[in-house]
Amino acid sequence: MGSKSDLTIMKEAADFLDKIEIPFEITVVSAHRTPDRLAEYAKNAAKRGLKVIIAGAGGAAHLPGMVASHTPLPVIGVPVKSSNSIDGWDSILSILQMPGGIPVATVALNGSKNAGILAASIIGAFDETIHQRLIDFKNEMNSAVIESASEFDKLEYKNKVNYRP
Amino acid sequence: MGSKSDLTIMKEAADFLDKIEIPFEITVVSAHRTPDRLAEYAKNAAKRGLKVIIAGAGGAAHLPGMVASHTPLPVIGVPVKSSNSIDGWDSILSILQMPGGIPVATVALNGSKNAGILAASIIGAFDETIHQRLIDFKNEMNSAVIESASEFDKLEYKNKVNYRP
Amino acid sequence: MGSKSDLTIMKEAADFLDKIEIPFEITVVSAHRTPDRLAEYAKNAAKRGLKVIIAGAGGAAHLPGMVASHTPLPVIGVPVKSSNSIDGWDSILSILQMPGGIPVATVALNGSKNAGILAASIIGAFDETIHQRLIDFKNEMNSAVIESASEFDKLEYKNKVNYRP
Amino acid sequence: MGSKSDLTIMKEAADFLDKIEIPFEITVVSAHRTPDRLAEYAKNAAKRGLKVIIAGAGGAAHLPGMVASHTPLPVIGVPVKSSNSIDGWDSILSILQMPGGIPVATVALNGSKNAGILAASIIGAFDETIHQRLIDFKNEMNSAVIESASEFDKLEYKNKVNYRP
Amino acid sequence: MGSKSDLTIMKEAADFLDKIEIPFEITVVSAHRTPDRLAEYAKNAAKRGLKVIIAGAGGAAHLPGMVASHTPLPVIGVPVKSSNSIDGWDSILSILQMPGGIPVATVALNGSKNAGILAASIIGAFDETIHQRLIDFKNEMNSAVIESASEFDKLEYKNKVNYRP
Amino acid sequence: MGSKSDLTIMKEAADFLDKIEIPFEITVVSAHRTPDRLAEYAKNAAKRGLKVIIAGAGGAAHLPGMVASHTPLPVIGVPVKSSNSIDGWDSILSILQMPGGIPVATVALNGSKNAGILAASIIGAFDETIHQRLIDFKNEMNSAVIESASEFDKLEYKNKVNYRP
Amino acid sequence: MGSKSDLTIMKEAADFLDKIEIPFEITVVSAHRTPDRLAEYAKNAAKRGLKVIIAGAGGAAHLPGMVASHTPLPVIGVPVKSSNSIDGWDSILSILQMPGGIPVATVALNGSKNAGILAASIIGAFDETIHQRLIDFKNEMNSAVIESASEFDKLEYKNKVNYRP
Amino acid sequence: MGSKSDLTIMKEAADFLDKIEIPFEITVVSAHRTPDRLAEYAKNAAKRGLKVIIAGAGGAAHLPGMVASHTPLPVIGVPVKSSNSIDGWDSILSILQMPGGIPVATVALNGSKNAGILAASIIGAFDETIHQRLIDFKNEMNSAVIESASEFDKLEYKNKVNYRP
Repeated sequence: MGSKSDLTIMKEAADFLDKIEIPFEITVVSAHRTPDRLAEYAKNAAKRGLKVIIAGAGGAAHLPGMVASHTPLPVIGVPVKSSNSIDGWDSILSILQMPGGIPVATVALNGSKNAGILAASIIGAFDETIHQRLIDFKNEMNSAVIESASEFDKLEYKNKVNYRP
Repeated sequence: MGSKSDLTIMKEAADFLDKIEIPFEITVVSAHRTPDRLAEYAKNAAKRGLKVIIAGAGGAAHLPGMVASHTPLPVIGVPVKSSNSIDGWDSILSILQMPGGIPVATVALNGSKNAGILAASIIGAFDETIHQRLIDFKNEMNSAVIESASEFDKLEYKNKVNYRP
Repeated sequence: MGSKSDLTIMKEAADFLDKIEIPFEITVVSAHRTPDRLAEYAKNAAKRGLKVIIAGAGGAAHLPGMVASHTPLPVIGVPVKSSNSIDGWDSILSILQMPGGIPVATVALNGSKNAGILAASIIGAFDETIHQRLIDFKNEMNSAVIESASEFDKLEYKNKVNYRP
Repeated sequence: MGSKSDLTIMKEAADFLDKIEIPFEITVVSAHRTPDRLAEYAKNAAKRGLKVIIAGAGGAAHLPGMVASHTPLPVIGVPVKSSNSIDGWDSILSILQMPGGIPVATVALNGSKNAGILAASIIGAFDETIHQRLIDFKNEMNSAVIESASEFDKLEYKNKVNYRP
Repeated sequence: MGSKSDLTIMKEAADFLDKIEIPFEITVVSAHRTPDRLAEYAKNAAKRGLKVIIAGAGGAAHLPGMVASHTPLPVIGVPVKSSNSIDGWDSILSILQMPGGIPVATVALNGSKNAGILAASIIGAFDETIHQRLIDFKNEMNSAVIESASEFDKLEYKNKVNYRP
Repeated sequence: MGSKSDLTIMKEAADFLDKIEIPFEITVVSAHRTPDRLAEYAKNAAKRGLKVIIAGAGGAAHLPGMVASHTPLPVIGVPVKSSNSIDGWDSILSILQMPGGIPVATVALNGSKNAGILAASIIGAFDETIHQRLIDFKNEMNSAVIESASEFDKLEYKNKVNYRP
Repeated sequence: MGSKSDLTIMKEAADFLDKIEIPFEITVVSAHRTPDRLAEYAKNAAKRGLKVIIAGAGGAAHLPGMVASHTPLPVIGVPVKSSNSIDGWDSILSILQMPGGIPVATVALNGSKNAGILAASIIGAFDETIHQRLIDFKNEMNSAVIESASEFDKLEYKNKVNYRP
Repeated sequence: MGSKSDLTIMKEAADFLDKIEIPFEITVVSAHRTPDRLAEYAKNAAKRGLKVIIAGAGGAAHLPGMVASHTPLPVIGVPVKSSNSIDGWDSILSILQMPGGIPVATVALNGSKNAGILAASIIGAFDETIHQRLIDFKNEMNSAVIESASEFDKLEYKNKVNYRP
C-alpha cells in the first residue's frame, strides 16, 4: 500500500488470500515519500520468495508501476479512489497506461478483492490445491446467484415472477 | 482475439512470447458472435494445459471478462482501440471494471506487448529460466536507454548537453 | 438483473409493466458468476414465449450484450450506477458500444422505467390495446405538466408569472 | 436522418433491412430546422403503418428524443459522430439520457447497422419469418468467425497456432 | 423550465430579474412531455412581446434547443444537474452543441443566476436604465471583493497578511 | 479573436453578420499577451456603440470571460478547438463555467456561425428588420431540408423511399 | 485567492509556508469581479519584492493565468473544486492549458499544500536554509512512512504481516 | 525526457532556454526502464548545481513525480501526448495529481515551451538579467499581437474592420 489509509480498501485482498489460505505479507511503501524503500523492496521481492506483488495507490499512483520497474515478478495494481483523486480517473490511468516493457496487471477501481483473486489465480495455475479452491470459490458464487434467484421466485414479485432456472 | 482484425495489435504479444520462447497458441473467439465457442474454449483451457490466457477486444469488449467467468486461470485483457471504439474508453472500461469475484488483469490500451510480458512474468514466477530471461530483457531495456542517452551526449544538442550518466 | 442488489433500480421497469398490464417475469442472472445459466436463459427465451428481454447491470456490464448474443429477441439494456461503477460511464459504455451484429437497445443510466416503457412500445407496435394504453400514458404525462404549469400560475411567482397555456 | 450528410452512416441500417427483406422508407427530418415537419412525421407514423422508427443525428442530437415525444412507437436512436461533434460524446448523451417517460433505444456511436438489426429483432418478435432470418444471420456470423479461426490455423502463426475449435 | 423540480435552480434567474426590475414570466414547458405546448409557446413568444427566453433543463436537455428552433429570439440555455444527469455532462452537451443555424446561449451548469444577468445584459444593450443598473451591479461585486479583502487584512492571517489594495 | 490563427473559424461569424447586413468590426485581442489592450477594448466597447461582443479563443480560453468582466454588454464566447487544445474540452470549460455574476453566452465548439446568428438574434429582438431577416433565414433552412428530403425521394433509395412530406 | 470561500483550501499553502518560515501575504483578488485590482496586483508584485505568486480559483478559473499575463514571476495555480465546478475538470483545464508564452505551474486539484511546498522549493533553489528545511521535511515524510509500516508490523494483520524494512 | 522520441516536443524548452541564454543540459532518463539512473540523477541534481528540472513523459508518466520524490529542487512536468497516450489524459493526470508532500509544477499538454519559460521565470525571480529578458519577451509577444491586429486592419476584412487599437 502507498499509505496506511489505503488499508480500508486493500484489506479485501488480504481477506481473500486468508480465506483461500495463501500466505502473504502486507506493508506500507510510498513511491514518493520512500522511493529508496520502494526500490529495495521491489528488487528483493523475488529473492525473498514472493511470487506476486499487489500494489494499491491513489491519485497520481506511481507505486505499482515503479514496483514493476524493479522486479520481473507479476505486479497487480489496484487504483484506489482516495480523497485526493478525481473520481478515480487519475489512479486508473497512472496505473493502467504503463509504457511498453513494464506491464502492471490492473484491476477495477477499488478492486482490491479482485486483486487477491487474481493473485490466487496466478498461483493456482501452478498449484493444484489453489486451483481447486478457486474452482470451489467460483461454484460458491454460482450457487449464491441461483439461491438468490430462487429466493426471488418465492417472493413472487407482484405475483408475476415465474421463471425458474 | 475477438476478431481477426485485432491481429495487428495482438501479434505484439505473440512476438514477445516467441522471443522469450514460451509456447503459445493464437485463435479467434468472439464473445458475441460465438458465445458457445467462447464457453467451450475457456472451460477447457486449464485441462488443455494452458497457464495464462490473453484476450484482446475492442468496443464493448466482453471477451476477456467472459473468458474469466469460465476459467480459474489468470486472464489478461487487452483493450483494443478498434474502429468502433470511442477513443478506447469503451474497451478499457468494459475490460477493467469487472465486478468482485471475476478479475481480469488489464493492460494499457493496445498494450498487447505488455500482455505478452505480463504472461511471461506470471510463468517466470514459477520457472527460473523464464524468470532469468525477463531479467535479461529488463537489462536490455535499461542498456538501450543508457545507449540512447549517450548518443544524445554525442549529438551535443545546441552544444549544451553535458550530463553523462 | 445481474444481481439482487439491482432490484432497487430494476423494479421501476416491473412497476411500469404492471401498471400497463403486460405480464412479465423477473429473475437474477449473472453474466460472470452464472455464465451457463445466462446462455440457457437467453437461448430458451424465444421458445418460452418471451417477446422482449430487459437486462440491467452495473460496472463492466456484460449481461445485456451476452444475452443479445444468444437470442434474436430485442434486448433492452439498463446501465446501473452500482457502487463499483465509475459514475456510470463503465456501465453505459459496456452496454451501449456493442459491435456490429449484436445490438442492445440501451436506455439512460438507471433508466429502468424507460426500459419498461420501451418494452411496452415494442409490444404496443403489434398490440392495439397496449398501443392505446401508451397513448393514454403520454396524455397523462402531458396533462401533468399542464397541471403543474397552471399550479405555478396560481402561485404567481413574485407576482410576475403571467403566461397561461 | 437529421441531415442528408448522415446518409453515409445511416445507409447501413437501410442495407440490413433490405437484406433481411423488411420494407422501409428513408427521409430527412431536422429537429431544429424543420420542427413542425418532425412533429407531423412522428405523429402520423403509427397511423401510416410504421412499426419502428430509426432516427440518427449528430452533435446536440434532439431528433430521436423529439420523435419519441410524439409517438408511442419504439424509436431507435443512432448517435452519429458528425463533424461538429466532440468525439461523439454529445451525440451519445443527448440521445441516451432521455428523461423518465420518453425512452429512446440507443445503439452504439455510428451503430447504424445495429439499428437495422434491432428494428428487425423487434419485428421478428412478432413475425416468425423475420425471426428465422435473424437466427440465420446469427448463424452466418458464427460461421464466419469459425471460418476465420480455421484460416488462422492454416496460416500457422509463427508455427505455433495449434488450437482447433 | 422543463420541470417544476428545476425551480430550485431556475429561481435564481427570476430573483436577479426581479432585483434589476425587468418584468418576466415563469412557467413549465416540457420538450418531451408537452412538445406541442413547447412549439406553441416558442412560436408566439416574439409576438407576445418577449425579448429573451431562458430555458433550463437536465439530462438529455432538448428544451432550449427546441425552443430556439421555433423562434428567432435569443434563447439562453441553463444546463441543470438534475438527479438523472451524469454529473451534468449530458445537460451541458445537449444544450451547448447545437448544430449550425440554431444557436443556444449556454451558461454554466446550474448557472441560472448568470442566465438572468445575461438576459439583463441583452436588454441593457438597448435600454440605458438597465445598462446603468448592470454597471452598478458590477461595481457592487467589485466593492464586495475589496471589502472581503480588507476584512481579511484585519484578521491578519497568521500575522502575515500585509497586502493592502 | 485571441489570435490571428482563429480567423479560419471566426470568419463564419463575420460572414453571417455580413449576409444579414449587421455592421461589425473584427480584431485580435489576446487575454494573456495583451491584457491591457483587452481591458481597454472591453471597457470602451459600450461607449463606442457596440451592442454585442463575440470572443473566440482556444485552450485555457480566458478571452471571453475577461472581456465580460470589463463590460455590461452581452459577450458571446466561441470555444475554438485550437492545436493546443485537448479535444476542445479545455476551451469549452474555461468559457462556459464562468462564476456567478459574469456570464458568457457560450456556443458550440467551433460554433462561430452560431455566434453570428446569436448576435443577430440579440439585435433582432430590438430591430424589426433584423428580426424579419432571421425569420427569412429560418425559413430558408427549413426549405433546404424539405428540398433535400424531396431530392431523396427522387433517388428512391433502393426503390423503397416512399415517404413524402 | 479568487474568493474568500477558497480559504478553506488555500490556507494549507499558508500553513506550510508558515511552518517552513517563509514570509508571505494572503489576499482576495477576483479575475472577473476585480479585473483592475488583479492587473495592479500582478504588475506590482515583482517591484514589491514578491518572488512567487500562488493563485487558487475554481470553475472557469482565470485568476492564475491572468496574473501570469501581467508578471514575469513564477505563478503557481491551484485548481479549486468549488461548488460551481464540474468535478474540478473546469478548474484544472482552465489553469493548466495555458497557451504558449504564459505558463502557470499547476498543482493537483485542491493541492494547496503542494503549492506551498513548490513555492518553497523555488525559493530553496536559491536559499540554502530553505533548501535544507525542505530536505528535513522530506526526511520527516520518509520517517513517517517507515513508522507507519512498523506500526503495521506490530498489528500483525491477520498474523501474517511479516515484512520488515 | 523519458524517451528519445520525446525530443520533438521537449526541444522547445531547450530552444527557449537557449534564446534567453540560460545554460542547461538535456538527457534521457526513463522512470520505468532505468529507475536507478533516475534516482541517482535526481539525488545529485542539487549538488551538481542544477536549479530547476524539467521532466517530460507520456502515458502513465511517472518520471516527473519520481524525480520530485528524490530532490527538493522545483520539478516542472510536461505531459507528452505520446503515441500510447489516451488523448493525453493519462499523461496529464499522472503528472498533475501528485499526492500532498511532493509537488510537480505541471504545464499544458505538450507545453514544453512553457516549461522553458517557467524555468526561466523561476531563475529570473533571483536573477535581474533573466528577469529583464522575460519582461522583454513579454513585450515582444504584446507587440506581435498589436502588429497582427494592425495588419488585420489593413486587410479590411469585408471592408468592415474598423477598430484600431
